[in-house]
Amino acid sequence: MLRMSTLFLRTLREDPADAEVASHKLLVRAGYIRRAAPGIYTWLPLGLRVLAKVEAIVREEMAAAGAQEVHFPALLPKEPYEATGRWDEYGDGIFRLKDRKGGDYLLAPTHEEVFTLLVKDLYSSYKDLPLSIYQIQTKYRDEARPRAGLLRGREFIMKDAYSFDVSDAGLHASYQAQRDAYVRIFDRLGLEYVIVAATSGAMGGSKSEEFLSPTDVGEDTYVRSPGGYAANVEAVTTPTPTPIDWTDAPAAHVEDTPDAPTIATLVDYANAHHPRGDRAWTAADTLKNVVLAATSPAGDRSLIVVGLPGDRDADLGRLAATLAPLALEPATEEDMAKRPELVKGYIGPGALGPQARAEHVSRGDDVDTAVTYLLDPRIVDGTRWITGANEAGRHVFDLVAGRDFVADGTVEGANVRDGDPAPDGSGPLELARGVEIGHIFQLGRKYAAALDLKVLDESGRQQVVTMGSYGIGVTRVVALLAELNHDELGIVWPVHVAPYHVHLVAAGKDEAVFTAANELATGLEAAGVEVCFDDRPKVSPGVKFKDAELIGAPYILVVGRGLGDGVVELKTRATGLSDEIPVADVVRRISSLVIEQ
Amino acid sequence: MLRMSTLFLRTLREDPADAEVASHKLLVRAGYIRRAAPGIYTWLPLGLRVLAKVEAIVREEMAAAGAQEVHFPALLPKEPYEATGRWDEYGDGIFRLKDRKGGDYLLAPTHEEVFTLLVKDLYSSYKDLPLSIYQIQTKYRDEARPRAGLLRGREFIMKDAYSFDVSDAGLHASYQAQRDAYVRIFDRLGLEYVIVAATSGAMGGSKSEEFLSPTDVGEDTYVRSPGGYAANVEAVTTPTPTPIDWTDAPAAHVEDTPDAPTIATLVDYANAHHPRGDRAWTAADTLKNVVLAATSPAGDRSLIVVGLPGDRDADLGRLAATLAPLALEPATEEDMAKRPELVKGYIGPGALGPQARAEHVSRGDDVDTAVTYLLDPRIVDGTRWITGANEAGRHVFDLVAGRDFVADGTVEGANVRDGDPAPDGSGPLELARGVEIGHIFQLGRKYAAALDLKVLDESGRQQVVTMGSYGIGVTRVVALLAELNHDELGIVWPVHVAPYHVHLVAAGKDEAVFTAANELATGLEAAGVEVCFDDRPKVSPGVKFKDAELIGAPYILVVGRGLGDGVVELKTRATGLSDEIPVADVVRRISSLVIEQ
Repeated sequence: MLRMSTLFLRTLREDPADAEVASHKLLVRAGYIRRAAPGIYTWLPLGLRVLAKVEAIVREEMAAAGAQEVHFPALLPKEPYEATGRWDEYGDGIFRLKDRKGGDYLLAPTHEEVFTLLVKDLYSSYKDLPLSIYQIQTKYRDEARPRAGLLRGREFIMKDAYSFDVSDAGLHASYQAQRDAYVRIFDRLGLEYVIVAATSGAMGGSKSEEFLSPTDVGEDTYVRSPGGYAANVEAVTTPTPTPIDWTDAPAAHVEDTPDAPTIATLVDYANAHHPRGDRAWTAADTLKNVVLAATSPAGDRSLIVVGLPGDRDADLGRLAATLAPLALEPATEEDMAKRPELVKGYIGPGALGPQARAEHVSRGDDVDTAVTYLLDPRIVDGTRWITGANEAGRHVFDLVAGRDFVADGTVEGANVRDGDPAPDGSGPLELARGVEIGHIFQLGRKYAAALDLKVLDESGRQQVVTMGSYGIGVTRVVALLAELNHDELGIVWPVHVAPYHVHLVAAGKDEAVFTAANELATGLEAAGVEVCFDDRPKVSPGVKFKDAELIGAPYILVVGRGLGDGVVELKTRATGLSDEIPVADVVRRISSLVIEQ
Repeated sequence: MLRMSTLFLRTLREDPADAEVASHKLLVRAGYIRRAAPGIYTWLPLGLRVLAKVEAIVREEMAAAGAQEVHFPALLPKEPYEATGRWDEYGDGIFRLKDRKGGDYLLAPTHEEVFTLLVKDLYSSYKDLPLSIYQIQTKYRDEARPRAGLLRGREFIMKDAYSFDVSDAGLHASYQAQRDAYVRIFDRLGLEYVIVAATSGAMGGSKSEEFLSPTDVGEDTYVRSPGGYAANVEAVTTPTPTPIDWTDAPAAHVEDTPDAPTIATLVDYANAHHPRGDRAWTAADTLKNVVLAATSPAGDRSLIVVGLPGDRDADLGRLAATLAPLALEPATEEDMAKRPELVKGYIGPGALGPQARAEHVSRGDDVDTAVTYLLDPRIVDGTRWITGANEAGRHVFDLVAGRDFVADGTVEGANVRDGDPAPDGSGPLELARGVEIGHIFQLGRKYAAALDLKVLDESGRQQVVTMGSYGIGVTRVVALLAELNHDELGIVWPVHVAPYHVHLVAAGKDEAVFTAANELATGLEAAGVEVCFDDRPKVSPGVKFKDAELIGAPYILVVGRGLGDGVVELKTRATGLSDEIPVADVVRRISSLVIEQ
């Protein structure tokens, strides 16, 4: 039994200054966590109890899915991460350090490499597989902008599982078993979620899905269609239109377009000076060329130009997901100064990619110095565009894709909008925001190949093992539970993750109240009900109620005025509704509400 | 139920190349842990089960002692550790790193500072105290020589508790409550231990005791007396003899002692050329002056000379414990070259401490450059010595302490020997080796003062809080349990910390054997007995027995030949003795052996 008189807790009436989202404010105010450093938190007794309950549910479902628990160090040597290239790819995103002998170490953000090496170390035959192993462990990422309390921290707890199979079919089965376990875990946690197609990013692999919990405080944007398509916005693919016949298209012609360096000014100028008969020019008729600087893990910086319809913006997140592990940012003035052929506001395909390359070849350059040019998938052959003529104050009209210009490839880099068609034809997309609570990957053979994890197959041949990786943000789940279960008074925990079931308030000054309350608390605990007994003698009932509501146990039991009549008050935190119940019924009644049947 | 056919385990017949102690060899060979980096280990499923059982016992006894569990980050900012001076004091002994913004962080080796700050953050009144809070958490030390597997690692798990009190009496009560909990924990774990007086070292504080488990693989040396005195050798104090009257002592006289730069050559020379009547000179008649280099946390290096009877060696561990936070090492040739007054082999008090200082003053030096001189407590006033005359080839005889020389102070720096008297008069000391499994400190007000943790007392005055700190090496305890409970076949776990209670071997090829074994395993699990069922179909009974003995469950149940007669064999791992028992009795019999009553 917890007793408020001795519980290590101090509730706060004011929101912490650095908190923006409700879960962050409430978890601090109600005494679950305290900030130790940016993105780094201490767990107080109540927080630790919630965390333990979430972890217990995860453990039970991992065991049910046949996954065995292990525990890896957080402090790991560089070498395995160097073998897979991630030591470089993570860039500033991880904590690195040296030991006293000068050896390079990292605080691991995820453990694919060392799980792979452990299996390589112990297993050698197809008979040992399939294998699924996992840990619940503290991870580290040096986030540029830790935010929202536990939602994006720098030290956090994850459940990370890894599967090892000989065959693709085995990987699919292991992946499905973890996916099913995730469904059960999030269902038991009472968390709403959507499962969306995702990109694999720096993780690599062939397929991945995210479990997103819909909430406006989420950093992830995802889409859904009426027909059931769901994807992280980074993973949405654009349906490619059918190419258009260009036989009747006029020849491209360069026009003076003074003072039209933006899409808006260009469209105005075109309608004023070069109107077309049937309808006005719009931004969708222009081809916008966006210049980005891409930095490789090794630190090499180069420029990439992305061409997209002028009514779309470039989405750096989508571009970064597609072009990983390159890090992208808008080109700077300095970048542009090194590329005089890129005339700001008037950039066109003629100075980019294959065309520029052909020109370099024709003038005998040794080195290909053309800027890479990638196009949005909508820019199919035969489409006609107004775009830059690579001279200040001039644009080219009727430039036809495929006839007048080509690119080095296509890229998913335009923003996705409400109403865009789903790639599978299942209807218009709707955008929403969510928090990633789980991410599952079919990694395939990337890590096993890099680290030489092979087993003998049935015919005695060495086979590279195929792997999956499956993460749940455990501390993030705690935050999200508070985020999705709160009101203006405080947190409203679902019963199975609450720090305790019943907040028992002794409301009154009489010794009899405290004695009766203590007896009830003891009886409830004996029946398996977890109780926090507010036994503070000199604290007013009003303060006690405020604390109870802020902390957020699902039931509040008030022992006070009615005691003379043999009744106490049972309040359901979620509804605010109260019931008078006879003292003799308390244990039976509350047990039936809170104990899992 | 664990099943050997799917358990993530590979037992090894060979000892790991880097292992020297039995627990390290066996925990790796039996599949409990794997090395990830020097002093950094991965926990496999069996290891994690033992760890969880040890942690559960610690948690239960902490709760019983009224300590509440919290959880701090491992990654912490520099500032609190700078405020107490430990950022510098730890030197190379901790892992340090910078985040992407250049902020300094450490991987915490212990958490006094941040526990202090947390309590300061939340509490402000004497009414909030006493408070005891603890965590079970991963800690880091960049050990120069990680060794012996989990016995001295660089990443390890500790239980660290901290108490907060207003009064000294409160601290004593909190300290005693933790001390009592330690006794219960180690008793329940079945670990033999001695409680010894200890030095506080870099931790600071007024009193500390260690729980040492006696074993030859231990790095700590401790002493015991027949009368019950027990102390870490670093903490042993030397009884100070009574001063001797020097009225009849001859005057000191310098003699030529060519080629006598060592104690042995000096004693030989003295007996040959300056014999005394009653008995021969021995090393105990000489005063040995040992030159040490001391480095302060700030990095300043200076020399200290320790004078001790010539039949004793300097014990750097004892000296370092007394002189913490100075780091000590023998002076180098380079150090000596800067101090021409120290004539190697012929150093005497005349060139040291107060005498040298007086000489500097008399010749008008501005700066005191005398080497600090500290004496062993045995060198009391009136004792007579042969010692260096500060000239090559010359020693001084009949040099009387107090009459002819003084020092800057005394120091506990001589080695302790079997038979030395206990400081409390409880008889001769006996030396033994042990492993530190717990260490409890009365820190007093050091940390609270440095970090300004004060509370209002009953009369409304601000009082600095007094603290205790209490550690148990949880991962080290796991290693020690294996170290103290093994034989030539493998580990022999005590029942309450074993990864499981019964290793059930299906010994035979008949389907009936496996069916019966499976039924027994299911029945045992239903009764609360933890079973590992060796259900591997193509593995010989011999290999299964070897694995069972290596892994070390307390009971091995063999289902095989006797099945036709309705009996199975129950073997007690510790004794090697077997019993035939009827199948029908198995569950009842084993339950009574393994379930805590």
